[in-house]
Amino acid sequence: MRFYTILADGQERVAVSEDGKNLYILEQVKDMSALIKSGSLPVIPAGQTPIDITEAKILAPIPRPMQDVICLGINYAAHADEAARFSAEAFGGERPYPIFFSKRVSLAPGPDDPIPAYEGLVDGLDYECELGVIIGKDAKNVKAEDAAAYIFGYTIINDVSARNLQTRHRQWYFGKSLDGFTPMGPCIVSADSFAFPPALPIWCRVNGEMRQNSVTDCLMTGIGTIIETLSEGMTLQAGTIIATGTPAGVGMGMDPPAFLKKGDIVECGIDGIGTLKNPVA
Amino acid sequence: MRFYTILADGQERVAVSEDGKNLYILEQVKDMSALIKSGSLPVIPAGQTPIDITEAKILAPIPRPMQDVICLGINYAAHADEAARFSAEAFGGERPYPIFFSKRVSLAPGPDDPIPAYEGLVDGLDYECELGVIIGKDAKNVKAEDAAAYIFGYTIINDVSARNLQTRHRQWYFGKSLDGFTPMGPCIVSADSFAFPPALPIWCRVNGEMRQNSVTDCLMTGIGTIIETLSEGMTLQAGTIIATGTPAGVGMGMDPPAFLKKGDIVECGIDGIGTLKNPVA
Repeated sequence: MRFYTILADGQERVAVSEDGKNLYILEQVKDMSALIKSGSLPVIPAGQTPIDITEAKILAPIPRPMQDVICLGINYAAHADEAARFSAEAFGGERPYPIFFSKRVSLAPGPDDPIPAYEGLVDGLDYECELGVIIGKDAKNVKAEDAAAYIFGYTIINDVSARNLQTRHRQWYFGKSLDGFTPMGPCIVSADSFAFPPALPIWCRVNGEMRQNSVTDCLMTGIGTIIETLSEGMTLQAGTIIATGTPAGVGMGMDPPAFLKKGDIVECGIDGIGTLKNPVA
Repeated sequence: MRFYTILADGQERVAVSEDGKNLYILEQVKDMSALIKSGSLPVIPAGQTPIDITEAKILAPIPRPMQDVICLGINYAAHADEAARFSAEAFGGERPYPIFFSKRVSLAPGPDDPIPAYEGLVDGLDYECELGVIIGKDAKNVKAEDAAAYIFGYTIINDVSARNLQTRHRQWYFGKSLDGFTPMGPCIVSADSFAFPPALPIWCRVNGEMRQNSVTDCLMTGIGTIIETLSEGMTLQAGTIIATGTPAGVGMGMDPPAFLKKGDIVECGIDGIGTLKNPVA
């Protein structure tokens, strides 16, 4: 089952689809966070004429997350190598424990929405295609082997990063949190759609050129362990979004580094979820 | 003018006070975030019998922040020195730019609420008394000299930190974000109560012993510059909470380090705002 937030008659509505083509609006649901907190999957509304997805304005599935997005840093082995080559001080060294940080998302861009270039402020605008995990019920002290039951679904997140701000402010928060830096979508696919942990091809193209290409079960810290580690101290509330880290192939990892510039087209894809395409503007 | 969130007849209510003694419930206000977003200060309700503050159950002024709290790291010079002595790798080196990070606050403890010790998980439980700035209207591209107009008020935040988690996960987020790690209160004092920037004695006592003792205008990156720097890229929404950093005298800065343990009493104070006392449990 797939969940979308769409703009219909000027209003944000939650829609459900089985086939990713015909969308049915959930009339009783206020927004995606309310659907997640309801604790159950909806039924496809009977007797409703579906909306063709090609006719719909698709927004980010959770346009205004209720808390900051929790992110994993350096969580694919080949990306660890390329990041350390770019800046040993910022990204190198031993990492016996996972790196967690957060990014603020006041309004997440959806498919086709622009990523702002921030010329003058940002040097080293970069993409990071990531599997996003959406927590479905409050999780505290959850063991890795029980974690799957706490997941509502999965989405695609582009963890856009300003490398100059990320490194010069020491902590990564600000360089990850600029307005428009967290494109998300095109939908949330319910957790029951995949085996756990999901092993889905994940890739990113810039102007049609394949830059990232991996599989989502190559995480150094897997989804179960992420939830176990965080929930030992933090309640992960229903609706929490966790971006699980990005594979090798980001712009700072290229030789020489190849960062995004105005006019570029970034496509992030995860097979089974979809494609999230955004222009840099 | 002082704003409190109190528990009255089992419900969270917003109350206002001029003298810090007599509290008047703002019947029409849903919660503190709604008051802040309303964009204006209320009037003291006429004809209402006030509640004596000693009879009220005072909660954190914003018990459930709508986004994570933005924090300044290493923002008093003497604290920079003591932190580098504790861990040169984690806290040392040059810092030409401010350090921003965030902490998740699912439920902020109020006055007298316990700080959990997390024995077994946390080694190096520490206090950090800080001036909290509450943004009053959406701020984007605000210059330092205009920043004061975007501030709703000030509160006290104890940025409780697990030093082992803060350092071993490289980024500070997780070690700052455990449930109960952000006591806040006792109230928000409206910005018009102080000259800008506020120069208020700030201090912290543990079991009655003075540990931190400074003044809030000793910030290395001042409030105006904090708002200018962040808002160049991020919209600081009305209701955003910024913890401006802690003075010298935290537990990791002592020789030998003296961390918090069960049964300790931590009092954070800022003259003109009040005292925030919490037991470690």
